[in-house]
Amino acid sequence: MGLALAQAQAAGARGEVPVGAVLLAPDGTVLAQDGNRTEAACDASAHAELLVLRAAAARLGSPRLPGCTLVVTLEPCAMCAAAAAAFRVARLVFGAYDPKGGAIEHGARIFQTQGAIHHPEIIGGVRETEAAALLQDFFKRLR
Amino acid sequence: MGLALAQAQAAGARGEVPVGAVLLAPDGTVLAQDGNRTEAACDASAHAELLVLRAAAARLGSPRLPGCTLVVTLEPCAMCAAAAAAFRVARLVFGAYDPKGGAIEHGARIFQTQGAIHHPEIIGGVRETEAAALLQDFFKRLR
Repeated sequence: MGLALAQAQAAGARGEVPVGAVLLAPDGTVLAQDGNRTEAACDASAHAELLVLRAAAARLGSPRLPGCTLVVTLEPCAMCAAAAAAFRVARLVFGAYDPKGGAIEHGARIFQTQGAIHHPEIIGGVRETEAAALLQDFFKRLR
Repeated sequence: MGLALAQAQAAGARGEVPVGAVLLAPDGTVLAQDGNRTEAACDASAHAELLVLRAAAARLGSPRLPGCTLVVTLEPCAMCAAAAAAFRVARLVFGAYDPKGGAIEHGARIFQTQGAIHHPEIIGGVRETEAAALLQDFFKRLR
């Protein structure tokens, strides 16, 4: 989560919403790390999670990432939560909870949907205060 | 939808699940068209919908596509439905319903979630029989 927080900080410095993510191989090796790039990439899907999922899959040469762990500083939205399922990650670790945009413990509750096929292990609230502070500072500066 | 069906057919011929999508500008111009590429691209997020959303946004130089229409041969999954919201498309037109993986009228019901901010106009079942037949033929051949 330290690496993900550093990526979030770097995203904020680029003027992007400060969310960062890391994708870990089953043995803990870092396969990919990145932060939000929606504005710079002109791509509303360029959330940190999707970027590291795609980068890790490209690196491994497989559209699926069994045994891998996705670490992200903010509770994923429905797009990224469903993407984590599509890539078949084994574990999802996130920092701050997002009652407005999150889709794990809020909103669409992707993994609690009837018929959801893939159920990664989920650990929320890891270094929550730091992850939330980055976002609060960013939006405070915008206002 | 005719263009989307042709893209679905082409995807099937490449050995991909035959789903195709088209992204239309507010004036009806085709901004992007593509089919599933999850296997070839080693990218579980390379669904037809995400590919055309990203391509159209890149073409327009904006992460958002207000006034645009996403046409796809199959009811989008949660990832693609939430992506359509993230890209702020005005209209979502789909062919076959997908009781197993769909997230518009089934599963996560992305746009019916409490707190969903973006609500595109939704038209389902357009040339449903043709879109469904492509998928049925594909999976019949796999067995």
